Amino acid sequence: MSFCHGLRLLYSQLSLFSKELNRPWYRYVSNSLALSSEKRASDFSSFVARTNTCGELSSAHVGQEVTLCGWIQYQRQGLFLVLRDFQGLTQIIIPQDEVRTVLYDAPVESVVRVTGTVISRPPGQKNPRMPTGDIEVKVKTAEVLNSCKKLPFEIKDFIKKSEALRMQYRYLDLRSFQMQHNLRLRSQMVMKMREYLCNLHGFVDVETPTLFKRTPGGAKEFVVPSRLPGRFYCLPQSPQQFKQLLMVGGLDRYFQVARCYRDEGSKPDRQPEFTQIDIEMSFVNQAGIQRLIEGLLQYSWPNERGLITTPFPSMSYAEALAKYGTDKPDTRFGMKIIDVSDVFRNVEIGFVQNAVVKPQGSVKAICVPQGATHLQKKDFESLKESAKSQFNQEVLHLILKPDESLKSPLSKFLSEEQQSELIQALKVQADDVVLLAAGEHEKVCSVLGNMRLESANLLESRGLVLRDPTAFHFLWVVDFPLFLPKEENPAELESAHHPFTAPHPSDTSLIYSEPAKVRSQHYDLVLNGSEIGGGSIRIHNAELQRFVLETVLKEDPELLSHLLEALKCGAPPHGGIALGLDRLICLVAGAPSIRDVIAFPKSFKGRDLMSNTPDYITPEELEPYHIQVAWPASEAEANKN
Amino acid sequence: MSFCHGLRLLYSQLSLFSKELNRPWYRYVSNSLALSSEKRASDFSSFVARTNTCGELSSAHVGQEVTLCGWIQYQRQGLFLVLRDFQGLTQIIIPQDEVRTVLYDAPVESVVRVTGTVISRPPGQKNPRMPTGDIEVKVKTAEVLNSCKKLPFEIKDFIKKSEALRMQYRYLDLRSFQMQHNLRLRSQMVMKMREYLCNLHGFVDVETPTLFKRTPGGAKEFVVPSRLPGRFYCLPQSPQQFKQLLMVGGLDRYFQVARCYRDEGSKPDRQPEFTQIDIEMSFVNQAGIQRLIEGLLQYSWPNERGLITTPFPSMSYAEALAKYGTDKPDTRFGMKIIDVSDVFRNVEIGFVQNAVVKPQGSVKAICVPQGATHLQKKDFESLKESAKSQFNQEVLHLILKPDESLKSPLSKFLSEEQQSELIQALKVQADDVVLLAAGEHEKVCSVLGNMRLESANLLESRGLVLRDPTAFHFLWVVDFPLFLPKEENPAELESAHHPFTAPHPSDTSLIYSEPAKVRSQHYDLVLNGSEIGGGSIRIHNAELQRFVLETVLKEDPELLSHLLEALKCGAPPHGGIALGLDRLICLVAGAPSIRDVIAFPKSFKGRDLMSNTPDYITPEELEPYHIQVAWPASEAEANKN
Repeated sequence: MSFCHGLRLLYSQLSLFSKELNRPWYRYVSNSLALSSEKRASDFSSFVARTNTCGELSSAHVGQEVTLCGWIQYQRQGLFLVLRDFQGLTQIIIPQDEVRTVLYDAPVESVVRVTGTVISRPPGQKNPRMPTGDIEVKVKTAEVLNSCKKLPFEIKDFIKKSEALRMQYRYLDLRSFQMQHNLRLRSQMVMKMREYLCNLHGFVDVETPTLFKRTPGGAKEFVVPSRLPGRFYCLPQSPQQFKQLLMVGGLDRYFQVARCYRDEGSKPDRQPEFTQIDIEMSFVNQAGIQRLIEGLLQYSWPNERGLITTPFPSMSYAEALAKYGTDKPDTRFGMKIIDVSDVFRNVEIGFVQNAVVKPQGSVKAICVPQGATHLQKKDFESLKESAKSQFNQEVLHLILKPDESLKSPLSKFLSEEQQSELIQALKVQADDVVLLAAGEHEKVCSVLGNMRLESANLLESRGLVLRDPTAFHFLWVVDFPLFLPKEENPAELESAHHPFTAPHPSDTSLIYSEPAKVRSQHYDLVLNGSEIGGGSIRIHNAELQRFVLETVLKEDPELLSHLLEALKCGAPPHGGIALGLDRLICLVAGAPSIRDVIAFPKSFKGRDLMSNTPDYITPEELEPYHIQVAWPASEAEANKN
Repeated sequence: MSFCHGLRLLYSQLSLFSKELNRPWYRYVSNSLALSSEKRASDFSSFVARTNTCGELSSAHVGQEVTLCGWIQYQRQGLFLVLRDFQGLTQIIIPQDEVRTVLYDAPVESVVRVTGTVISRPPGQKNPRMPTGDIEVKVKTAEVLNSCKKLPFEIKDFIKKSEALRMQYRYLDLRSFQMQHNLRLRSQMVMKMREYLCNLHGFVDVETPTLFKRTPGGAKEFVVPSRLPGRFYCLPQSPQQFKQLLMVGGLDRYFQVARCYRDEGSKPDRQPEFTQIDIEMSFVNQAGIQRLIEGLLQYSWPNERGLITTPFPSMSYAEALAKYGTDKPDTRFGMKIIDVSDVFRNVEIGFVQNAVVKPQGSVKAICVPQGATHLQKKDFESLKESAKSQFNQEVLHLILKPDESLKSPLSKFLSEEQQSELIQALKVQADDVVLLAAGEHEKVCSVLGNMRLESANLLESRGLVLRDPTAFHFLWVVDFPLFLPKEENPAELESAHHPFTAPHPSDTSLIYSEPAKVRSQHYDLVLNGSEIGGGSIRIHNAELQRFVLETVLKEDPELLSHLLEALKCGAPPHGGIALGLDRLICLVAGAPSIRDVIAFPKSFKGRDLMSNTPDYITPEELEPYHIQVAWPASEAEANKN
């Protein structure tokens, strides 16, 4: 259920309210909010003036006097109103006396408290689709606790407004069913994770500082000026150094639901502050961390999302790249990349030959099932244009016609045998489309991985279902390279993940001779094609860590001298992982954006539209921090005038 | 048990190790760490290569093959070693074979894994005071996982080092029993709080942003430059605005273990980042919040600290000031302030008369029991000096001699009847000392409140016990004034706590006529004389909130326009509280400083001595944020040369 759909259901058509009561969304609300009352012990009305929430009264309560607090969802003057709180809706009947006067003028979204008696609805007026549909409350006393003076817009028009408007009035947006559901789901899932880690497996929840030192190469770290002239804190991207130091300190098993910061400027669906489930263990290996995380997710997984099975499948980085063209394969559907170099080795096409004779050269293809039926000429053009613009790579397409012949400019260069080999290799069926590219292995894989996802999007936009939206496919991706050539200077190496990652045990000696060939003990956790976590076994040997920093990465080890010192003082072998909580909850909730699982998100430009953050502050306020604004020339000019 | 004592017990006298094993601190370690294994389900050896921790083997395990991982606490070459992990110590017997070679040279604090058989210690060698004292492990195989290459100092000398050294090598300091205990206590207590709030009472754990807008008057907020020229985020001192907006958004019950920031420059025992248990509820009153917090503390209170009884006593701010001279009375001991104005009304002493005739003028005193026995002349001088320098207030002292006469320069001005009245009013006994001050009510209360604590410190330094270190005296302080005169301009008012605090229901109408007389619905929670929490019922009426901001406080309401807007849109009545977690855990753990319950604290100057934070960064790194350092003249000069 999409966010907008949820909003629509809650807010739309208030004028058709009585009709609305008979629609099935009440059942949905009821089922989903049952999540909150899963733990029977939860008392939602302790310490406050109400006796019940608006979602829990039923025939069993008939005759009881109850007090409810909530918002007026709908009211017909002097007859009845519908009261809403976080748990549901209850119909309130207003008798012909002074109570009617109290409630008569109260606008929609006003906050009221009512006390009255639970009565059965008259025969024929029960609503079996509404959790409280068997009863209504006949009011004795009522009080308007706060009249809704103004709504910035008609709430029923809310869904037509931009996301910017939702963000500006986030406190109204939060009243929607979907946001209530998402935030409660998040809270409950994190609570289960804590129970698993802390209560079942002896982890210690340790808070680490967020005012820290700049890390080497930490270009994405926010800076925080201190009162010491010229000296700055930085907001770290993760508690990486601290968690390793905690292992050196003998904490043994650490976790934290950690706030992290990353300044990436404007990026869609990224947040300048985000949350990770941060974990580190001593005396553990890769398999140990993997089993822990599988158990953690299984334990905390919401019932409403079905069961997940463990262990999760595992795939090497090399295989993920070769078969899916990415390090985060969406394994919910096929269309894998197939190497067809052998078919084309003797084909006399210039660009194919150019590709095949080179080292790492190859011809690869994917088969788009029923592509000829569902895709049009302009789709193929757009796919090819995308390959060209993103990867500077030509992609050809071939269609297998119902008469088993291949339709393509390429066909004439292929013998019947070669055509047949191609069809067999890709298991092509009538009306399938083959997308084919030739060139260097990694590049061809990447472009076809991209074509695979774009084709899937196109097919799904035409009504096919390739990726089951209720399926959750977890995958470990392992055996990453430890180092990668730097983009700006491929002769130099940089860490594929971070400089603390330990080499693969089989490759340790290679690090001194051929570091570019060393695999790491890094592992990523992928869910439905999104990376939701990553971690590694760390280097615990001070000499190896210094060698990596100084000799391989050519970085100044002085910036990490405290960590190098710590490794000399009896550091245990250790490793860990971090799960991206916002992304994970977003996938579990089926939300379109991580902004829908964060209470007060920033816009993609890093702004809070509700409060107009970030904002200007005065030079006097900057004085204690010994900084001043360096206005860009244009603005300095403007300010002068 | 003090921190240093704990360290000493763990690290001292390694050369006397066998003697050490017979000392009772093992029992203490054992009892305290039992906290960790309270929940029987906790499996500390899941997912890792060990079978057991170093604290859990007993006679029941004799004959089992076990694998342990840990640090060498002590070893005698080739004979035996003692292995340590977070849970305890186990004695390891090394047979005469190649294992001896492996372990022979391993320095103390090296990390090893051993596998062997649990055997009974020979008769006479059992140590009933050590949890694992009945057994030892006879090693079959051993591996040095990481040799301790270097320790920055002899660990046994550690305790003699400064706190600065502890902080610089925090990862070694964390291995101490006391730090392990404190961090685990903190983790477990917070976990229990979460269970209480989330599982038992339906609270939603919501994460709120830490990159936010400057709050009006937020002089202590760190600024964080953004990539938008001249625009800054601020790190908020609390999630106050967000928690109120969540109530407007219908979240109903919110909590968060929230990281907060406060830049106070150098202040002892304050941290630039700290943690609070942040709570907000809709439809609640003051009593509701108080009962919630009492239940929360009772539920999460560690067994080892005894039971706490609820409800906590309550005292008005006026009474706290009058009786204890402070808004955070330590009620573990007496020595209350007594008003003796009536005794002195007709006494012909100039300064007394001057005080008594003024409005608010008074003469007050405290009685220091056995003060004449335990305090010396220089102590009284130092007390008076302190009153003079801190409050510019004279304090006189009178001693009741065993012959029932009052010894004091004052005596001659007092009739026998007046002396007797004074003795009765203060219940003075022989050898008690009376400290007396005359002047304006609040000032006299404050100075005597201070004298009360200073006298108690002096008496305790002489061996008396006034404040039971195992007692926990909780106290609600209520009915604070809503506004206070500004220090720099007493004609203007400022919020006693914050501008969102609601007035006391009985005083609401006064706010428009005599705002200075309005009491608030603020409440503080005090434990043993420390403020550990504070909160209030908030203003939910937009007009009242605007009146307070604009008319009473003369602040620009535009800075809070989003909150004022929100209050118009159907804001429920709401209130909340925040508990200072660092301070609370510090008191529960009996630690001398909050730095002892924080894994990586900053020094009182806000520095991390381990990593040298904050640190210099280059002008290039500041460029994306459009700021430059404004060097103070002296340093700019130095940099030039």
